Amino acid sequence: MKIDNDIVLRAARGEVTERSPVWLMRQAGRILPEYRAVRAQLSGFIELVETPDLAAEVTIQPVDILDVDAAIIFSDILVIPQAMGCPYQMIESKGPIFPKTIRNASDLASIHVADPGKDLKFVTDAIRITKQRLNGRVPLIGFAGAPWTIFAYMTEGSGSKTFSVARKILYTDKAFSHQLLDRITESTIAYLKAQIEAGADMVQLFDSWAGILGPEQYAEFSLRYIERICDAITEVPVTVFAKGAFFALPAMRNLNCRTVGLDWHTDIRTAREQIGPGKTLQGNADPCMLYASPEEITRNVASMLEAFSGTPHIANLGHGLYPDTDPEHVKHFIREVKAYKHRV
Amino acid sequence: MKIDNDIVLRAARGEVTERSPVWLMRQAGRILPEYRAVRAQLSGFIELVETPDLAAEVTIQPVDILDVDAAIIFSDILVIPQAMGCPYQMIESKGPIFPKTIRNASDLASIHVADPGKDLKFVTDAIRITKQRLNGRVPLIGFAGAPWTIFAYMTEGSGSKTFSVARKILYTDKAFSHQLLDRITESTIAYLKAQIEAGADMVQLFDSWAGILGPEQYAEFSLRYIERICDAITEVPVTVFAKGAFFALPAMRNLNCRTVGLDWHTDIRTAREQIGPGKTLQGNADPCMLYASPEEITRNVASMLEAFSGTPHIANLGHGLYPDTDPEHVKHFIREVKAYKHRV
Repeated sequence: MKIDNDIVLRAARGEVTERSPVWLMRQAGRILPEYRAVRAQLSGFIELVETPDLAAEVTIQPVDILDVDAAIIFSDILVIPQAMGCPYQMIESKGPIFPKTIRNASDLASIHVADPGKDLKFVTDAIRITKQRLNGRVPLIGFAGAPWTIFAYMTEGSGSKTFSVARKILYTDKAFSHQLLDRITESTIAYLKAQIEAGADMVQLFDSWAGILGPEQYAEFSLRYIERICDAITEVPVTVFAKGAFFALPAMRNLNCRTVGLDWHTDIRTAREQIGPGKTLQGNADPCMLYASPEEITRNVASMLEAFSGTPHIANLGHGLYPDTDPEHVKHFIREVKAYKHRV
Repeated sequence: MKIDNDIVLRAARGEVTERSPVWLMRQAGRILPEYRAVRAQLSGFIELVETPDLAAEVTIQPVDILDVDAAIIFSDILVIPQAMGCPYQMIESKGPIFPKTIRNASDLASIHVADPGKDLKFVTDAIRITKQRLNGRVPLIGFAGAPWTIFAYMTEGSGSKTFSVARKILYTDKAFSHQLLDRITESTIAYLKAQIEAGADMVQLFDSWAGILGPEQYAEFSLRYIERICDAITEVPVTVFAKGAFFALPAMRNLNCRTVGLDWHTDIRTAREQIGPGKTLQGNADPCMLYASPEEITRNVASMLEAFSGTPHIANLGHGLYPDTDPEHVKHFIREVKAYKHRV
């Protein structure tokens, strides 16, 4: 299907576009009253993730309301552990909990490589419905967690400040670590291919917990699995967003991905030097900056876009939107990105 | 008083010592059964901080038990907000809570610049007792939180994954932010001078939440206050440890501090290039690495010391010890640092 506004896709293919396209991590979510109204009909977050019709509805909301250049399917990175046989619960204001953790070789017997056709049909159904309803207005982004981040949750059993259980396993049982990472990687490749088959126009890998590893462990336990996924996904452009992994940016230059996401700690010009001219960069405003006055937001947008100037870029935040952000400020950010004129 | 084992002080003055001296962040604490025995006599953590005789006892424990080259006074960075009129509680397994937060100009009326002689006497008393009991065996390190980290707690009111309340204030009320940071800075300078007067042989600033700011805000709201403290403390060597502020390492080259602490995400050789040859570097083993086998610990110590080789260095972790670390592994780490022979 032809896409009417394909500026995100063109930027993701390496084109320096007439302006920076813009979408926002967590754009479908609690900042929108319209999202909260849908969510209130249901018993919980996971029910929304697993109800394709409503997942499609909240996916499209930010396209209608915020005027972003792309939709991203409403889902959660933790559907992968669940599809592998390690289900999660979402505890309000606490985050995810895994009643069963996977911490050693014998735990591996209780999980399997995910079969997206069976275990993740609610996501591919949501993608099909969304594509139909978007009717070619903007591209639809699919996504998955990077294997290390999924490993961190499956072993730790919840969020954590240090993920010291997960990281301890990397030091004490490398063989198991690689076995589990291998299965997560296989599951993720199958999952992303199913999303693309269902209609995702591009995909993003979120390595949310990249920043708690040191450079050596990151190379061994995260980057090599991201590399495998990037090599396997040849159908659509791939974006890699590894939050906090500033030390890995030079290595990202050689990944088979089209776009690298930057967090807000990253100096844009330094990142461009490290990654080279061959990739599109995405990001990287501080989500907290959206609490500022409209004038301050305008100033920040200008200095961000100036720094990315002349290179392929997709405007975004450096992390997900905070739930209590004023939607009017978000709209202002998006308008300012679209209106920005590069100095010539 | 003459110090028998002064290798930490010599390294902190910029000398390339015969071996890397070693101490560990959180060496006085829950990893030691001897600490837990003292702690069990009291109602809580804060009571231990405020009981000079017992604070001195747990300060000296790691010198006796772990054979480290320095003691660091047992205390908490949050004694500063308390001394300013903003007390904290420590909730077991949850962390610190501030019943009263300081979020705007009118809240400033309820706090004052700390007077260490009155508000922090329990710390200077603990330092005097410790110095007496150490009797010159090893140096005693004093410390304080960096102003931004203290600001983050006083405004947010607790720990947080995003510190979005604290960071929002930086965007929405710069004038107040600088007023509060100024008062914290004045309090911290007075506090560190009182620690030195009481006998601290060197001092360390902990910027534990450095890594949640972007580079621009870090320069404006953290680094310039650290700079003021470094300029003010001329009596003893100062160490600055800004966890996660990889982007600020080049700027640290110009600080009036003697030593820069590195977290475990930092590549040692890159940091040395960025900071230049003029400073001592401290760190930077991953605390999680101490869960590994003794052989793996030995290997990690060797590769760390090899990377610091030939430059002034104080061996340490890249963050505090995790409470469930086996003390035998900690001892092994320390022995291996002391035994390491640089290749010639």
